[in-house]
Amino acid sequence: MKDAPMIIPTIEDMQTARERIKPHVHVTPVLTSSFINDLTGAELFFKCENFQKAAAFKVRGACNAVFGLTEAEAARGVATHSSGNHALSLSYAAGRRGIPCHVVMPRTAPQAKKDAVVGYGGEITECAPSTSSREAVFADVQARTGADFVHPYNDPRVIAGQATCSAELLEQVARLDAVIAPIGGGGMISGTCLTLSNLAPEIEIFAAEPEQADDAARSFRAGHIIADDAPVTVADGLKVPLKELTWHFVSTHVSDILTVTEQEIVDAMRLMWARMKIVAEPSSAVPLACVLKHPELFRGKRVGVIVTGGNVDLGKLPWMEG
Amino acid sequence: MKDAPMIIPTIEDMQTARERIKPHVHVTPVLTSSFINDLTGAELFFKCENFQKAAAFKVRGACNAVFGLTEAEAARGVATHSSGNHALSLSYAAGRRGIPCHVVMPRTAPQAKKDAVVGYGGEITECAPSTSSREAVFADVQARTGADFVHPYNDPRVIAGQATCSAELLEQVARLDAVIAPIGGGGMISGTCLTLSNLAPEIEIFAAEPEQADDAARSFRAGHIIADDAPVTVADGLKVPLKELTWHFVSTHVSDILTVTEQEIVDAMRLMWARMKIVAEPSSAVPLACVLKHPELFRGKRVGVIVTGGNVDLGKLPWMEG
Repeated sequence: MKDAPMIIPTIEDMQTARERIKPHVHVTPVLTSSFINDLTGAELFFKCENFQKAAAFKVRGACNAVFGLTEAEAARGVATHSSGNHALSLSYAAGRRGIPCHVVMPRTAPQAKKDAVVGYGGEITECAPSTSSREAVFADVQARTGADFVHPYNDPRVIAGQATCSAELLEQVARLDAVIAPIGGGGMISGTCLTLSNLAPEIEIFAAEPEQADDAARSFRAGHIIADDAPVTVADGLKVPLKELTWHFVSTHVSDILTVTEQEIVDAMRLMWARMKIVAEPSSAVPLACVLKHPELFRGKRVGVIVTGGNVDLGKLPWMEG
Repeated sequence: MKDAPMIIPTIEDMQTARERIKPHVHVTPVLTSSFINDLTGAELFFKCENFQKAAAFKVRGACNAVFGLTEAEAARGVATHSSGNHALSLSYAAGRRGIPCHVVMPRTAPQAKKDAVVGYGGEITECAPSTSSREAVFADVQARTGADFVHPYNDPRVIAGQATCSAELLEQVARLDAVIAPIGGGGMISGTCLTLSNLAPEIEIFAAEPEQADDAARSFRAGHIIADDAPVTVADGLKVPLKELTWHFVSTHVSDILTVTEQEIVDAMRLMWARMKIVAEPSSAVPLACVLKHPELFRGKRVGVIVTGGNVDLGKLPWMEG
């Protein structure tokens, strides 16, 4: 398995993606909460990708990759390794095009996630819960099928797709001062950088990360990629490390990477459920947790907050544990 | 405590209410779910009053009552007895006008509800959990304060306010065949009847009720009001009986009252959370439960579904009990 060559997506790629994915994704609503505005002293505009198809922004990048394939490429299907929203999203996109989607997932992944992938038409190949097993199994799947590898974030097609989210936000909310989004592998943040640096360079971009998976924040301070081995956080979408393509965008365009504790994430998540009446996953609450922790950075400002997804186990909510 | 005289609100009252409450309430969004449409064979349009101010449609009627008072009336404040969304909503409305709101609540009401009322600026007077105590305490509060009694539903101002919800829905969704809403005391259903019978009489109106609190369904079949004494249901907004004003609308304009079991309500609620990613209270799930139970009534039709509120104890979800 080798990484894709370093091709930096352009704003034209974002615009092409937008047209391409339009029939397959929602223009998600922007919600506000006067209670949370009072609490933070900022004007927050929540871009609700939890209402997106497959309940995650990742469907944008997945659809851009899948619907950009030639007929010949598409016939061989797509493949990825992910136990999260990218797996669901790629399965959804492949299902819409009627092509196979191969997903390599650790056999320890939650049954609910496996069921969801299968529900969208994906085909799961299990691996052991280690990087070496995942890579070996994935190489095998790819060799057997010839499927096109769609990396969860280190892929220009995926970043151009994620970039469509901020393009919508710019049309939905005027005069933003800042946008804050979670950072894991950096796909959403890179897409945000791509769009804003071209279309609205006056808007500051902040990334929000769990303290317990703060590899991006440490990379940012060090000036080069630092990868954690196996971070443990409730924000399970944010455990993966930056890669060269996302590092390019993060190191060039992000103002700062803020971090928050597990408890701050859970509190912010519960606040969103209680006050906004939306089902948002823990990763989605990391930006709000950062705004609550650093009110001085956002007070009096108009801030876009990317709510990245809504896939959560309703039978096991984090404020009910322990 | 005597009931208000029987004044039937008119469509002009609804239109007046709409102008009056506009600065104080949201035009709530309409959401759809392709998964749930596939499941039911109908096209469902969910009118999301869980995103309303105070997270309930009841703020419409409460605001109409509060902002319709003369200055002299307003100075004495408003009063009601409720342990649910009407208490929150009236407190919110009174707070917006800067007048007192007296709420008589059983001392056994959940602390979260009491906190919410106080959070919106309401003043609670506790009573014993019996009708006789509630009436005695309420009479005392009213005598002491001279506050205007705003009944949770048997009040023409309240019904005219709730009627604004369907007026919005008609503008948001074309060519509806039917609308289904929960029925407890009948305020929302009466408002729905008021608007649709005047503006879109071709649309069928269904009411949805818990089997364990089926007094409205039994009243409908009997042709007169039957009140249950103390029904027990997870849909705690739907325990109260019809009164003469709501009976007038229900008996005149409703096509049928459908009922569902507790398990069917909880299943539908979880389905809404899981698939629509919204926090909706049990009462809000009763209409979808009815559509799932009686697909033959709705198949192939365009159906408005009123999601009445989103006030729920996030620490104690019904699918986690037992």
